Amino acid sequence: MMHDIQNHADTREIAIDKVGVCNLRYPIVVLDRSRERQATTAAISMSVNLPQHFKGTHMSRFIEVLNRHRGEVTMRTLPQILEELKTTLQAQSAHIEVAFPYFLEQSAPVSGAQALMDYQCQFTAEANGKTSTFTLSVVVPVTSLCPCSKAIADYGAHNQRGEVTIDVRTRTNVDGTAAMIWIEELIQVAESSASCPVYALLKRPDERHVTMQAYDNPVFVEDIVRNVAVTLQADERVRWFRVRALNHESIHNHDAFAEIAWERL
Amino acid sequence: MMHDIQNHADTREIAIDKVGVCNLRYPIVVLDRSRERQATTAAISMSVNLPQHFKGTHMSRFIEVLNRHRGEVTMRTLPQILEELKTTLQAQSAHIEVAFPYFLEQSAPVSGAQALMDYQCQFTAEANGKTSTFTLSVVVPVTSLCPCSKAIADYGAHNQRGEVTIDVRTRTNVDGTAAMIWIEELIQVAESSASCPVYALLKRPDERHVTMQAYDNPVFVEDIVRNVAVTLQADERVRWFRVRALNHESIHNHDAFAEIAWERL
Amino acid sequence: MMHDIQNHADTREIAIDKVGVCNLRYPIVVLDRSRERQATTAAISMSVNLPQHFKGTHMSRFIEVLNRHRGEVTMRTLPQILEELKTTLQAQSAHIEVAFPYFLEQSAPVSGAQALMDYQCQFTAEANGKTSTFTLSVVVPVTSLCPCSKAIADYGAHNQRGEVTIDVRTRTNVDGTAAMIWIEELIQVAESSASCPVYALLKRPDERHVTMQAYDNPVFVEDIVRNVAVTLQADERVRWFRVRALNHESIHNHDAFAEIAWERL
Amino acid sequence: MMHDIQNHADTREIAIDKVGVCNLRYPIVVLDRSRERQATTAAISMSVNLPQHFKGTHMSRFIEVLNRHRGEVTMRTLPQILEELKTTLQAQSAHIEVAFPYFLEQSAPVSGAQALMDYQCQFTAEANGKTSTFTLSVVVPVTSLCPCSKAIADYGAHNQRGEVTIDVRTRTNVDGTAAMIWIEELIQVAESSASCPVYALLKRPDERHVTMQAYDNPVFVEDIVRNVAVTLQADERVRWFRVRALNHESIHNHDAFAEIAWERL
Repeated sequence: MMHDIQNHADTREIAIDKVGVCNLRYPIVVLDRSRERQATTAAISMSVNLPQHFKGTHMSRFIEVLNRHRGEVTMRTLPQILEELKTTLQAQSAHIEVAFPYFLEQSAPVSGAQALMDYQCQFTAEANGKTSTFTLSVVVPVTSLCPCSKAIADYGAHNQRGEVTIDVRTRTNVDGTAAMIWIEELIQVAESSASCPVYALLKRPDERHVTMQAYDNPVFVEDIVRNVAVTLQADERVRWFRVRALNHESIHNHDAFAEIAWERL
Repeated sequence: MMHDIQNHADTREIAIDKVGVCNLRYPIVVLDRSRERQATTAAISMSVNLPQHFKGTHMSRFIEVLNRHRGEVTMRTLPQILEELKTTLQAQSAHIEVAFPYFLEQSAPVSGAQALMDYQCQFTAEANGKTSTFTLSVVVPVTSLCPCSKAIADYGAHNQRGEVTIDVRTRTNVDGTAAMIWIEELIQVAESSASCPVYALLKRPDERHVTMQAYDNPVFVEDIVRNVAVTLQADERVRWFRVRALNHESIHNHDAFAEIAWERL
Repeated sequence: MMHDIQNHADTREIAIDKVGVCNLRYPIVVLDRSRERQATTAAISMSVNLPQHFKGTHMSRFIEVLNRHRGEVTMRTLPQILEELKTTLQAQSAHIEVAFPYFLEQSAPVSGAQALMDYQCQFTAEANGKTSTFTLSVVVPVTSLCPCSKAIADYGAHNQRGEVTIDVRTRTNVDGTAAMIWIEELIQVAESSASCPVYALLKRPDERHVTMQAYDNPVFVEDIVRNVAVTLQADERVRWFRVRALNHESIHNHDAFAEIAWERL
Repeated sequence: MMHDIQNHADTREIAIDKVGVCNLRYPIVVLDRSRERQATTAAISMSVNLPQHFKGTHMSRFIEVLNRHRGEVTMRTLPQILEELKTTLQAQSAHIEVAFPYFLEQSAPVSGAQALMDYQCQFTAEANGKTSTFTLSVVVPVTSLCPCSKAIADYGAHNQRGEVTIDVRTRTNVDGTAAMIWIEELIQVAESSASCPVYALLKRPDERHVTMQAYDNPVFVEDIVRNVAVTLQADERVRWFRVRALNHESIHNHDAFAEIAWERL
């Protein structure tokens, strides 16, 4: 019979908030509004709490729980994964982070040419005996054109690729689940809050269009986060969000950013 | 007279928590316990709040404030930098993050051979009208040797490079400054909480020594964070800390981690 | 009729070796020895040459060619993709790099517990009028245990996660295609050249086994690259390889590495 | 007397091209045209060859050689460092790579406001019994404005931050040293080949200026590499270069790039 060191008693009297595994690569399947399911690849972190009287957790069990759900890491299965982590690891709380690229078919604005755009996303889910939270995060690349540059120059205006990161938590439905928000919806909110969306494929008439669309809609990072905030505050499903806009300034070698966090009272 | 778009009124009625610049590289000088000053290079983020009635902040002023303090970004000058940011940008709160490698001369345990070890550090400072906080963060690479592997195998034990990240805030002195903790002290706390320190230069007698030292001191990530916690809780200067230990497991392609946050009541 | 600036003449008399797109994320399907096909996500770079008399290439066409092959980027389809790039962009040479994580079901050595391990891979394909080359690259995480540490210490031995990167080109078959080598084969070569494979899931009897297997098979990075070299030189399919072993040294905060390139004469 | 495993004979009959250490962080001093010396921080790789009859190299000696030259890693001292590596490690060839951020005081084009800009640089030096090479690499951030977008749109033009990477080797002087080229000179070549330089600090009149300067000088990545090539080919000191321009396209979520390598015959 082998030693189970992890089950030894610990006398330092210090409980541990989180113990687990991270930087684990894993193929997953997520929900896709138009195609039902999308296969992608994720980087995963999973952890539980550890009461003060146990020396260690059993790390291999995290992988076993994940394996059982292979192919299904969604807003719907995550509550169950958290429950299994708590049960299997005899813990009171469990935490999981799943980061992945999500691909969406976008149509160019004039030619209609279609191509896949990538958006970096993350699910963060946490459960303890009392509450559970689910946070959806999406990073949306956009074009931003500087209102100041446009106003003070006789012609032209500096613009650049920016990224809008939206983290959102929704209100709880009567059945205890969280209200659904699609990745696609947050992408749309971010894109419409910037000067212009970015695309994977643009033909010349499209390039003409987005050039003028950006020039017609100049925004600072301050404008982008406010535009997103106005939209999300008006969405009754949203009970908390944080939005961060970042510009890879085309005239500097550093970035500009703005950030707002908000909670519905 | 040029337009000052940023000074325009904004009617969306949404205040912004943070607006500023980030990913700015800059050469800095920090305090060094044995050599007084150390030149290094930093990645810097600076931001302020923006009241709801202003359209934008003036990004160039962040750089101007930093320039004025060129060469001096320390626990002692940061409060003043924050004050200047608030004044120059007419803001109520200011926030700064300064991440940099710090180099320390270490002696090999047997031969005494000396070489510079690098530690990734960060200063995070924040001030608003009421309170100001200063957080020192140090990432300390260590060796960890697995107690379970040692106990169940007839010989050998898997071990690996790990990293211990300590974030700490100290109590306020009677003169309003924060109690001083040196980077060197946190490095020592982390190294003594793991199986063995790591070194830049080890001769053969040193390698023999650290091999056996690690084998004699097996620790889980759980043990590392508890050992750090015990030491920091006993240090009266410390009023808050978060410690995270991470192992680049030599038997897996993912990492194991543990984390504790604590505040003195 | 819109201007086609790219088609303008250029008078600087300087031909361009490569012009194209890079850092493009895209979902792909690759060949899998046991499951036929595997869905994963890639970072892609595509380029062509540009003769001195043309001002610019047409970047959108790279995306269009890739779209046409959506879901199929394999050793078999890459020659055709290169041909289409050359035709569509009126170029003499074309180059493509496709980097992706590949997942393989591994069984733990004693318990037989199964879990997916990830390996970072890359296809690099190039074609011009005369020759075409296809390079398969695989990064294999392994355990390495230091022979010096084992020999000089009374007990224990430092070990760590390492990674073995193999780039390989095979001989040309009589039908003009490159001889097939599976990703799975290169993984096996790398793992058997190190102290021990790494796994995603190990139960306690497995951990005991790999601890002792590593201790019984100490290797320097020098040994790993030589072991791989001996195996690949004996494989008649291989006409060129480069192997690099890197150890994330558990006793240092830097890495050790060794590298060999070889071509069959 | 301790075992020297590395000195054991090896019977696999396979010589190793490079063996050494990498990802080593170290504070260095480099030459600065206007201030003589500049303190910065580097990531360093050092390696030597290993003949087929030796089992291993002595990794600690790399660090010892570096320590002896602490504070001086320049085009002038690198030949000596390489010699010491060969002698100390009984090798025929030695190789070193030193990557570091370099800071340069830049003046804004209208206001003259000064601030430090950062440029990522690398020294690569190699020596064997017959030849030695020294390569200087500089990554210069720039603004690029798209000629196609400008030509086809009624107003505006998409622009973005780009980066120009120049690797250069110079001819050998009569005394055997390499002809000197300053980092500052390569920065100037890159900046004048793009639409506009980027700056750390721009006041409003400067922003107006760079906005219009970029609009007046539209360039594709193809133009940037050709402009750099024309300048470097005309510089008699240059005997080889490779230039790569990359645009973080503001209308896409991928990058565009072009590359030219050239050798004086």
